[in-house]
Amino acid sequence: MAADNMSLSAFRQLATKIVCVGRNYKEHALELGNAIPKKPMLFLKSPNAFLAEGEPIVAPPGCQNLHQEVELAVVISKTAKNVSKSDAMSYVGGYTVALDMTARDFQDEAKKSGAPWFLAKSFDGSCPIANFIPKSEISDPHNEELYCIINGKDQQRSRTDLMIFDIPTLIEYTTQFVTLQPGDLILTGTPAGVTKIVPGDVIEIGLTGKINAKFRVQ
Amino acid sequence: MAADNMSLSAFRQLATKIVCVGRNYKEHALELGNAIPKKPMLFLKSPNAFLAEGEPIVAPPGCQNLHQEVELAVVISKTAKNVSKSDAMSYVGGYTVALDMTARDFQDEAKKSGAPWFLAKSFDGSCPIANFIPKSEISDPHNEELYCIINGKDQQRSRTDLMIFDIPTLIEYTTQFVTLQPGDLILTGTPAGVTKIVPGDVIEIGLTGKINAKFRVQ
Repeated sequence: MAADNMSLSAFRQLATKIVCVGRNYKEHALELGNAIPKKPMLFLKSPNAFLAEGEPIVAPPGCQNLHQEVELAVVISKTAKNVSKSDAMSYVGGYTVALDMTARDFQDEAKKSGAPWFLAKSFDGSCPIANFIPKSEISDPHNEELYCIINGKDQQRSRTDLMIFDIPTLIEYTTQFVTLQPGDLILTGTPAGVTKIVPGDVIEIGLTGKINAKFRVQ
Repeated sequence: MAADNMSLSAFRQLATKIVCVGRNYKEHALELGNAIPKKPMLFLKSPNAFLAEGEPIVAPPGCQNLHQEVELAVVISKTAKNVSKSDAMSYVGGYTVALDMTARDFQDEAKKSGAPWFLAKSFDGSCPIANFIPKSEISDPHNEELYCIINGKDQQRSRTDLMIFDIPTLIEYTTQFVTLQPGDLILTGTPAGVTKIVPGDVIEIGLTGKINAKFRVQ
């Protein structure tokens, strides 16, 4: 089946992992007091993190500081291992916009003690995703506007050309270590503007004119 | 399909994640200079980590210090969320023995900088697994002997009752945050004796009298 003909639900059923990129927008790295990375900083969410529009976002038990991070997500269309930058875009089936929901207090504790990020980043529902756009509808994924509106007010808004490591670089780097499979997502990092989310918040995410979804926090 | 009738290959096809437990044997925590954890320390491998007997173990690019960690692995048989300790064993379909292959140099760098463990722990082939044993063949998983023999010499050998957090505790804790699905594995932690692995090494792992598999390092 050609990647461009696959539905979002087909991709979701196939997905085995969500590879996330930390600190891929300079202003976001700085707002949390982190250094600008010299190579992509990758972490992992598993498919239990997926959340569809209409399902509530819920903080994991014990979390007192839930943050939203809006990200352009790349959907992988075919098995990818040791892919070069020049071939990388042929492994992309489409795009969506996702929230990398983060238990910031769990993550801060993990960072301090050198512990893993799993519970901070991959709890159930920690990856709300919007609708799927086939690759053919976006001529240049690095020339789009990504946004996150909370309770009607702009919270994050950025051009995607501000990514430190572009999509071909992320695919080349990741597939040196990890095989990407059809339906897997790469979340390409969040721009500045992450903040604390509380029950009742409505989070609207998208790519201007192309992707839009709304999520409610319970 | 009843869990006890499922084959290992069926479980492998279903698996969406491998939940690993760090520092769950006191002597292993101490050998790496780590504190004894007060709650389970969880991290994640994705299914690209699976490696079957006959496939070679290969260090990820750039890794200079690959370690083996033998672990008793629990195979989940049905969807598990918010499971209590007293119910936990009914979600177990069987057992296997796995290697949590670790790029220790990547992990040490991550621990120092508070970075995620993904590339240290979830590179392709970082979870070699032995044969599957249905739950009915092990009356008490906390009363077994786990071993890892390298090039014919004992490298790790431990009773499983030395786990700090037992299997019901691990399932209860994990499923507060994360839904476990049929085929998912929990790797229950490694006893003391981790060491540097080099090409040509033969690693034999098992549960005495019940599970055995051999892997060659390329």
